[in-house]
Order: sequence, then C-alpha cells, then structure tokens
Amino acid sequence: MSYRLLKEECHAANLALPRTGLVYLTFGNVSVADPERRVFAIKPSGVDYGRLSPNDMVVIDYEGRVIEGALRPSSDTPTHRRLFLSFPGIRAIVHTHSRNAVAFAQAGRGIPCMGTTHCDYFHGAVPVTRALSPEEIAGDYEWETGGVIVERFAGAKLNPLECPAVLVRNHGPFTWGASGERAVEAAMALEIVADMARRTLELNPEAAPVPPTLLDKHFFRKHGAGAYYGQPGRH
Amino acid sequence: MSYRLLKEECHAANLALPRTGLVYLTFGNVSVADPERRVFAIKPSGVDYGRLSPNDMVVIDYEGRVIEGALRPSSDTPTHRRLFLSFPGIRAIVHTHSRNAVAFAQAGRGIPCMGTTHCDYFHGAVPVTRALSPEEIAGDYEWETGGVIVERFAGAKLNPLECPAVLVRNHGPFTWGASGERAVEAAMALEIVADMARRTLELNPEAAPVPPTLLDKHFFRKHGAGAYYGQPGRH
Amino acid sequence: MSYRLLKEECHAANLALPRTGLVYLTFGNVSVADPERRVFAIKPSGVDYGRLSPNDMVVIDYEGRVIEGALRPSSDTPTHRRLFLSFPGIRAIVHTHSRNAVAFAQAGRGIPCMGTTHCDYFHGAVPVTRALSPEEIAGDYEWETGGVIVERFAGAKLNPLECPAVLVRNHGPFTWGASGERAVEAAMALEIVADMARRTLELNPEAAPVPPTLLDKHFFRKHGAGAYYGQPGRH
Amino acid sequence: MSYRLLKEECHAANLALPRTGLVYLTFGNVSVADPERRVFAIKPSGVDYGRLSPNDMVVIDYEGRVIEGALRPSSDTPTHRRLFLSFPGIRAIVHTHSRNAVAFAQAGRGIPCMGTTHCDYFHGAVPVTRALSPEEIAGDYEWETGGVIVERFAGAKLNPLECPAVLVRNHGPFTWGASGERAVEAAMALEIVADMARRTLELNPEAAPVPPTLLDKHFFRKHGAGAYYGQPGRH
Repeated sequence: MSYRLLKEECHAANLALPRTGLVYLTFGNVSVADPERRVFAIKPSGVDYGRLSPNDMVVIDYEGRVIEGALRPSSDTPTHRRLFLSFPGIRAIVHTHSRNAVAFAQAGRGIPCMGTTHCDYFHGAVPVTRALSPEEIAGDYEWETGGVIVERFAGAKLNPLECPAVLVRNHGPFTWGASGERAVEAAMALEIVADMARRTLELNPEAAPVPPTLLDKHFFRKHGAGAYYGQPGRH
Repeated sequence: MSYRLLKEECHAANLALPRTGLVYLTFGNVSVADPERRVFAIKPSGVDYGRLSPNDMVVIDYEGRVIEGALRPSSDTPTHRRLFLSFPGIRAIVHTHSRNAVAFAQAGRGIPCMGTTHCDYFHGAVPVTRALSPEEIAGDYEWETGGVIVERFAGAKLNPLECPAVLVRNHGPFTWGASGERAVEAAMALEIVADMARRTLELNPEAAPVPPTLLDKHFFRKHGAGAYYGQPGRH
Repeated sequence: MSYRLLKEECHAANLALPRTGLVYLTFGNVSVADPERRVFAIKPSGVDYGRLSPNDMVVIDYEGRVIEGALRPSSDTPTHRRLFLSFPGIRAIVHTHSRNAVAFAQAGRGIPCMGTTHCDYFHGAVPVTRALSPEEIAGDYEWETGGVIVERFAGAKLNPLECPAVLVRNHGPFTWGASGERAVEAAMALEIVADMARRTLELNPEAAPVPPTLLDKHFFRKHGAGAYYGQPGRH
Repeated sequence: MSYRLLKEECHAANLALPRTGLVYLTFGNVSVADPERRVFAIKPSGVDYGRLSPNDMVVIDYEGRVIEGALRPSSDTPTHRRLFLSFPGIRAIVHTHSRNAVAFAQAGRGIPCMGTTHCDYFHGAVPVTRALSPEEIAGDYEWETGGVIVERFAGAKLNPLECPAVLVRNHGPFTWGASGERAVEAAMALEIVADMARRTLELNPEAAPVPPTLLDKHFFRKHGAGAYYGQPGRH
C-alpha cells in the first residue's frame, strides 16, 4: 500500500502554485487527501519550490501522525487537517499569501460578489474569519486557525463545496477543491476576483453586490446537475 | 462551400487573446462572422486555449443552428449572435474579463473619455448597460445579454462602428471590429484606457472628460475619410 | 552626405521603447536630431515596432520638409520639430502613453517631486500644459501641441535641460535628452516617479514635496560640474 | 589575505537584486561585510548590473578607506558604513527604490504590521526616519543618512536584528541580514508587505495592526530559539 500517486499529485500541485504568480518567497502550500485512507500529503516546511521532489511530500494521517516522509511538514499542517476532518467532500487544500486576497483579510472584509467572474467560482461573498483570541494563538495556533474557519462556515450555514475559499483575518486565503488542480484554480480565481472587487470599490465605494438571480444563474450554469458551461463529461 | 478560412481566422484570434494578458483561466472568447453567408465561427465552451485547433471552432448560422463542429459552442454564443444581427458592419466580436474594464462594469460606470489614448479608439465614453431583470436572467439569459447591449446603443443613438466596445453591468466587456485582429486590438485598447481612467479618477475624482473638439480631432485623424494617421492604404 | 548613423540611432531608440513596457499597440515614437545639419529622424506613423528597419526612419529638416524616407512620418512630427527648434541642446525626443504619466496628464496635475528617485532625474515637479484651445485643435494641431509645451516652460522659466519631461494635458508625456538612449531613459524614469507619486498621494494626500536642499543635492550629485554619482567620464 | 570570497558574495547579491524586480535603471546596491576584518565590499556607482564582475566590487574598510577596487564605490557607501558600525550583527545591506516601500517613505509613514506575512519577517511596524536637516544635507549627506536611521532605532529602542528594514524619508528602503542572500530576501519581503499594507489601507483606512500575541507568535515561530518553521538546521 503505497502513497506514490498521492505524493505525485501533491507535488504537481505545489509546483503549479508558484507558476500562478500567487506565491512569493516560501509562502504557500498545497495538500492532497485520500479521504478513504484518511491520509493527506503536504509540502514540507520552508523548502524552496525549485528543490521539491515528490518524495519530499510528507504523508500525514487524519489523527495528525506522520506516516511517510523525512522532512518536517508545513507548519500549517494542523489547519489543513482540521479542514479535511470538518469539510467532507474536499480533496485538496491550497494556502497562499496572494496580495489582493491578503489585503481583504488584513482589512477585515470578506470579498463581496460584485460580478459574474466571482459567481462562476464562488456562490456568494467569500467570508473572512474572526481574529483568533490570545488563548487560541498561544495554544495550538495552527489547529485553532482551522477552527475559526470551520466556525465561520457553520455560523453562516455556508456550504464549503459551494464556496471553496475563505480568508483568515490578518493572515490570508485558503481554497480547496476536488483535486490539487482544482484547488489551485480556486486560488487563482480568488485572487482575480479580489483584485476586481478592490478596483470596483475604488471606483464606486457604494457598488452593490450582484442580485441573487444573477449569482444563481452563473454559479449553477457551471456547477451541479443543470450545468451547461464547458463540454459534457468535463467537471 | 467550406468554412476553413473563417475557422482559421477565428482560431488565430482566440489564440491571440491570452497573449494579450486580458484573459484568465478559461474566461474569454472570440467569434468571427461571414455576414454574406450569415454564419459565424466561435470558440468552444470551457476549453483551454492551449488545446484549441482550427477544427474545434464551432460554426453557427444567424438563426442559431450549429452548422459545423463537434464541440459545444461558447455559452456566450447567443450574445454574439444578437450583436451580429443588430450591428451590421461588425465582423468579429471579443469577450474578456479584463480587470479594469470589469471593475468599471461592476461599479456600474461607463469609461469616461479622459484623453487622447481613448479618443484614438472610441468616439466618446464607453457605455455600461443596465442590469438584466430577474425575468431576463431566468429566461434566455445570454440572448438577453445581447439585448441590453443593443438597447443601450439604440437609446443613446450610439454608432457601434464609432464605439466598438460596451460594458455589460456586473459582467464585463465586449468589443468588436472589422476582423478578428481588430476586435482583439479593441479589447486591448479598452483595457488600457480603463486602467488609465481609473488612475486618473484616483488622482482627481473631478477630472473632466476631453472637450468635443479634441475627441473629434483624434478619432477622425485615425478613422474615416479624413484620416491621416498611419500609412495610406492601411485601415 | 548620408543620414545612416542618424537613422540607426533613431531606429535603435524606437526599438528600445517597447522593451521598456511603456508603449502599447502602436502608441509612442522617438526622434533623434542632428542640430548642426538641422534635421531629425523620426519613426513612421502607425507601423508595428516589430517591422521597423533603419531605412524606414523618415528624415525631416527643421523647416518640416521630408528629406529622406518613403513612409509617412509620425503624425506627431510637428510637435517634435517645434521642440527641437525651441529647446536648443536637446538631441532626442520620446513620446509615450505610459499609464501613470498619462493619468497625471488626464488629471490635469503635474508630477510633484516627492522623493530622491525623482530628484535624480528632474529638477522639480514635472509640469502639465494647459489644454489646447478649440482654435489650436482645429488648426495645426500637432504644431500647437509643441506650442503649449514651449509656452509652459517659458512661463515658469523652466530649463528644459534640468527638467527633461512634460505632460501634455489630456494626452501624455514627452521626454528628451542628449541621445536617443538618454531620452528613453528619461521616459522610463518619468513613469517610475509618476507611479511612486500616485501611490504616495494614495497613502497621504497631504504629502509634501521634498525640500529644495534635498532636491538640489540629489539633482546636482548626478548632473553638472559637481556631479559625483557614477564613474568619472560617464555622463 | 584576499577579499575574493567577500567580493563574490557581494557580486552575487548585486546580481540577484535586479532579478527581484525591485530595482529600476541603476538604482539599488548591496554591500557585504566581513566584520572581523572590519571591511565590506560594495557595488560601484552607476554601473549597469549587466556589466558587473566580482572584481568590480569595491572593498572599503570601516574607517571609509578604499582597500581594493579600481572603480568609484556607490555614492551610498557612507550610509552602509555607518550602519555596519552601529548595528553589530548585520553582515549585508541592501538599498532599493522599490515602489511601494518608496511610496510609504515619501508619504512619511512607516509600514504598519497588518498581517502574518509582515510578522514572519519584521517584528512590528517598519519605521520611517525623520527628514534630514538642511545642514545635514549640505554636509556629509550620505553619512548623515545613516545617522537618521541609527537615531530612529535608538529613539524607539528597536533591535535591528528583529526589524531588518527601515524607510529613509523622501528616499526609500534599506534592509539587512546575516548574508547577502538574506538581505535581498528582506528587501523582497519588505516590498511585498508594503504593497499588501497599501491595498489594505485602501480597502479600510481604519484597519488595525495585528495584536501583539499574533505578532510574537509568527515572528518567533521563524526566528530565535523556539522557531519551528522550516527544516531543523536551516536558519
């Protein structure tokens, strides 16, 4: 029973990340899970993207134990683990410090849904979490970071499969999806719509979000049973 | 009677689009029409630009029937079709989600004509449409999107040949021209002048548009019978 | 008596221009003069940079007659000619539509001297001209464009050798220098300081320009008899 | 007793600088010190990065005498020297005119610590110096520039090893580190967090800095005895 395929998908998605332009220095990481085996592979901590090989990926089980890998896993590993445990149905998670998404996170604002670019990926505003308490920061910080994400989605009854992104306040975005590739695509889409929303608010601070009918139209023409965007059989 | 040349021009223009930097992910598409034969070729829906070949282009007639092509055409096809029907004289249409043009569309503002860069391409402000009604969104959405564009030009007595661009509110820009190449050039010019206008309004929210004499001077030194910009014989 | 060297310098500077990232589509042009022979070479109008050869450069004399060249010269030629006639000591002129410089021109604001990056190239604020009158626009428009530049420098007693740049209102920047290379460098420096000034004013709308002592210190450590920046013998 | 290794490290760091995108024209320089021998190597003044070889680096001793090198050293050399003398423990210094850091310097504002990207590199706000007096500018200008930096750190009891960056008012940033590579990394991180802070303040002018617990958590998970970011043994 090997983790070769899991580590290869994780490695490929981690290499795709800096090519998106969303990642600077050593910020950013991708994990990819095998939910049936209750494990996920994740980037090692603070290693340059240029030096990564598939075997550098660290395999962790859902209880947090290192199953395979010689390197220390990303310091954000407990955040990823908590999301895999709480959001069944997601298979890969991406964390970046992309500039516009970070700007909203630092401003303490969610990303409002101002147009169809946003609707095509996220079914409504992308939420921002509350700040962590001093106790949460002093405690198991990265695990608690996952906790404020889960709390935010539960409190607003948000479906993580319809809103595959969140902003952690004073920190930055996490996105997810059905594969490493899709989670990276969500990170790109998030940064694009954050940039567009910022420019929109600059031109019109009172600009209103899209009406619900337009939001549903665009989201569901790409997602779910009634989708008619793209080619049949491609998800 | 073959559509080879039409599909090749459409393919070339679709490939040119991502090279402009105006297109992200799979957003954006180009169509090219043969008005005499009342058909147009258009990009298939949701296919990566890197994988497109001329034969992937879908040929549609002006009544909306697929004439040639195995793939599903762009979901925006009815918008293109309505513009070809309503704006005689245009031969190619480009749709992008370029960031600054989208920001104006999301802000509900047209792009004011602040300088000669703008005058060289567009004879006055680039208009923004009204929002679609819930009924229009629930109905034949993409066809109605073309409808609000046509309504906007008719209401303001705008000549689509003198203003080859529009912003669909909460969505983004459409541009057009006498060829695939010229429509792509209009999309580039639109994004440039939107970016310049945004920065201008940031520096001076009360900045005035150019006076009509300057607008006419620059537009007509490049367009029409009295043009003296460029080399003779090049349009 | 040939113009080969003049045309080659002009060609090289025109090719350098798009590499700066300051030029989009076919906007922008460079001219290089031979003041002793009272002629200058300039880019032909509306030709793609990729297709230019040295022999495409058009040689014009100071009276405005075409001396050599088969193509129509840049439509901005009379502006260049008026500057060569009025500003003795400049040998090359660059015109771009670079975005931040254009934004200031469209906002009707000069570029304030906010820091040492600016002081290193321009001895004080870069001025913006008045708008042209309807009569000037309807008349010899490009010649009159040179006129408002000359008027602006005369009115403010500015020395064009100490401020090698100007913004034409609602249009964009012209820069100049002792060679094609130096005029292109001035265009790059202008766009950089315009971008920095825009961001500065965004962060602090009341930010003050640098004090005169700092301005003089930086400008004259790079320019004139007391310069000590760079290597001896390099200007 | 040769300075070959010192000059090679200095040369490599100077070449890395333009690759960061933080440097335009000939702005920017790096110095690398050998504190035990009380010397440092520094880039020559006003030479294009493309033409630099290790032997072009100028070696200066802590008293300011040229020890080795045929070229004139960077005009900013006295600033570097003063920092090496005043901040024991730093081994390399980088100066750039990167746009967002310059914008804060020109606006007279320090860079507030708005999020974890900032905390990972700088233990709190990055300070801005006071303006130099006319006497300081007219005197030994570059030496006095170092003086206002040292004064700023002393006045606020800042530890230069915990805040490896400063903004000189109306000028731009200096950063430092334990090696040429680390000082360049600090310059990159500074520009990133300046850009993020600017966008944050645009979205929310009242946005608050991170609380001290979060600042300490992130800074000390990467720095000092309790660090757990990255791989063991890598600093």
